[in-house]
Amino acid sequence: MPLIVQKYGGSSVANAERIKQVAKRVVQTKRKGNRLVVVISALGRTTDQFLKIAGQVAERPSEREMDMLLATGEQASVAILAMAIQELGEKAISFTGPQVGIITDQSHTRARILDINTERIRQALRGGNIVLVAGFQGKTVTEEITTLGRGGSDLTAVALAKAFHAKQCEIYTDVGGIYTADPRVVPQARKRSRISYDEILELASLGTQVMQARSIEVGKKFNIPILVRSSLNHACGTWISKEIPNMEEVVVSGIALNQDEAKITIFKVPDRPGMAAKIFKTLADDDINVDMIIQNKTQTNLTDISFTVFKSDLKRAMDSVKKAARLVRARSISCDQDIAKVSIVGVGMKSHSGVASKMFGVLAKNKINIEMISTSEIKISCVVRGTKGKLAARAIHQAFGLGKK
Amino acid sequence: MPLIVQKYGGSSVANAERIKQVAKRVVQTKRKGNRLVVVISALGRTTDQFLKIAGQVAERPSEREMDMLLATGEQASVAILAMAIQELGEKAISFTGPQVGIITDQSHTRARILDINTERIRQALRGGNIVLVAGFQGKTVTEEITTLGRGGSDLTAVALAKAFHAKQCEIYTDVGGIYTADPRVVPQARKRSRISYDEILELASLGTQVMQARSIEVGKKFNIPILVRSSLNHACGTWISKEIPNMEEVVVSGIALNQDEAKITIFKVPDRPGMAAKIFKTLADDDINVDMIIQNKTQTNLTDISFTVFKSDLKRAMDSVKKAARLVRARSISCDQDIAKVSIVGVGMKSHSGVASKMFGVLAKNKINIEMISTSEIKISCVVRGTKGKLAARAIHQAFGLGKK
Repeated sequence: MPLIVQKYGGSSVANAERIKQVAKRVVQTKRKGNRLVVVISALGRTTDQFLKIAGQVAERPSEREMDMLLATGEQASVAILAMAIQELGEKAISFTGPQVGIITDQSHTRARILDINTERIRQALRGGNIVLVAGFQGKTVTEEITTLGRGGSDLTAVALAKAFHAKQCEIYTDVGGIYTADPRVVPQARKRSRISYDEILELASLGTQVMQARSIEVGKKFNIPILVRSSLNHACGTWISKEIPNMEEVVVSGIALNQDEAKITIFKVPDRPGMAAKIFKTLADDDINVDMIIQNKTQTNLTDISFTVFKSDLKRAMDSVKKAARLVRARSISCDQDIAKVSIVGVGMKSHSGVASKMFGVLAKNKINIEMISTSEIKISCVVRGTKGKLAARAIHQAFGLGKK
Repeated sequence: MPLIVQKYGGSSVANAERIKQVAKRVVQTKRKGNRLVVVISALGRTTDQFLKIAGQVAERPSEREMDMLLATGEQASVAILAMAIQELGEKAISFTGPQVGIITDQSHTRARILDINTERIRQALRGGNIVLVAGFQGKTVTEEITTLGRGGSDLTAVALAKAFHAKQCEIYTDVGGIYTADPRVVPQARKRSRISYDEILELASLGTQVMQARSIEVGKKFNIPILVRSSLNHACGTWISKEIPNMEEVVVSGIALNQDEAKITIFKVPDRPGMAAKIFKTLADDDINVDMIIQNKTQTNLTDISFTVFKSDLKRAMDSVKKAARLVRARSISCDQDIAKVSIVGVGMKSHSGVASKMFGVLAKNKINIEMISTSEIKISCVVRGTKGKLAARAIHQAFGLGKK
């Protein structure tokens, strides 16, 4: 009998009514002749409530105790879903991550899965049970409870799909799939029926929050077919899989607009080897994530360096940049929050030329100035004025023929 | 260094402010030169919320899944308290019941502790930690999560006190001790400084909810000194210990008033051997708890049997009694909800005569009719009209000199 892993996010189990809907869908899948392992996140806003009370009792709650606390959310979800499934007349049994032997390293709040001991789940499956596993959690070899970081339930699901050689891993969200662009920005956006691991990874790094990036990496590494779909309806979702030949016919598979970044420029840095290294080591030491980096040589022996950071990190970043600027004896610094980054992603770029020039042409035709450019093998990102972001995304979306047919 | 076990109930950790207060008290105890194991219940109304959502998704939630769900409440509490203690600069570490090897039988929702593996806690204590243990929970030998039933955190605390040969076990409640009577009923009620295990057991069976009865039994069996006190102030509480000689000078140590019972009478039961057995087996099979039983032979070959049940069970009890009455061919049945049971408890009764007659005399003097009487070695209970319950309790309290001095 084929085995399917399903994962339901927190909003899918936000209240009793939703939980019953999920139970019904799980039972339907089972009755179609599948064995089932189901991974669930914490109910609705449980995690936020825990973070709030932790913040009330401690300035910097210990990460070990944070894991003890947060792991309870998923444990509660699986128990409640098990009850709801049993109520529909199917056998179900819930387990915590530690109970089913999801062994991780010791990095509390961001642990990595080292191994999964499959015996307990196998036994429960042999007993005809739908097996429910609390997402997001595991234990160390010394029986300490750990959690896998934000989006960790996705990772639990993909890792279980790998461990059990599942036919597929289904990720249920309220979004229902992966779109050519964010429908709130580009009304013509269309749900893709298929996308490659690499494309979704690029989109994830551009801020498209559909699945945790690490879980996609695991899916890619072990070639696990992942289906992203809605828990609210039975519409087709989006398959994430490796590239297949005709995929390349689609040159651009998605557009991402990111308005959460700010641009920092350090002016007149002495143009000598090691200057960039000094600057970005200072930022890294202060735990500032840097995205795009552009260096422009403006005059003899001096250069300007620009880069983008998340607006939420901006205050800390500026403090760090001031230190760095002193260190390399740069002239001055500036910061610009009014920017937008628009990106196109597609494996087809590898074999199609002229994609970049087409994108730049569309922007030019719409009188949108490009301030920064950065590219990878399957991605092109342009930074434009913040006020032009949506216009840029819509124009590019249309130019590449991504809209609804 | 002496070791103390402390247990804080759900209301002691109802919100962030209360949790910080508990943390402060725990740290004070530690800094006085004690080693500390602290047991905590679920935060505030967590358990009620879990029961509610379980009831929404299933008519009869499976007991195994109920344990998975409920056990999360105490796990969350210990983690949060650990953070609050660490914030005060002391080392603390939290554990679930399963993590510290509290091994129970397989009776989900009412498991019994079979064994406690003390190694993990010992190691944490050696490391200078305040050790926090989630109350109310354990695991079976097959790693299934179990809970110990209502008041189970008391049992966790007393069992840990036994396993670690603790100097004492402190139970923190909002009540702050054990009183000669419920202060809401008898304003003159006084906090006892000391009471015996047997007396508190009798009081517990009479409905005085201070500690779970099973945990007192364990305390008695292993002679563990238990101190019941308030988490809100530093007032002296009440010591529960074995009888000590001068205890007997106090003839009556407490009065209990129970207005939660109803009286059922089965009239004209054939007066033959086996009739009572048939009636009460029927009730037991229907899971009805029966308290006092009185049989009165009223005429040749016929007898009346009266007994009390909890009002909350009354509807089910009457259904069951109808079956029983048919079975023994009794004439009729009646039910009376307007009763009160007033009881006096005291180890001194064993060596003092005339206690019962003094109690009956007080009731007579106050023109209170006695409808049923039941006694044990250290307890006398009388059923009176419901409207006379409070008057009876106050009069007896005064007659035995229990009031504030």
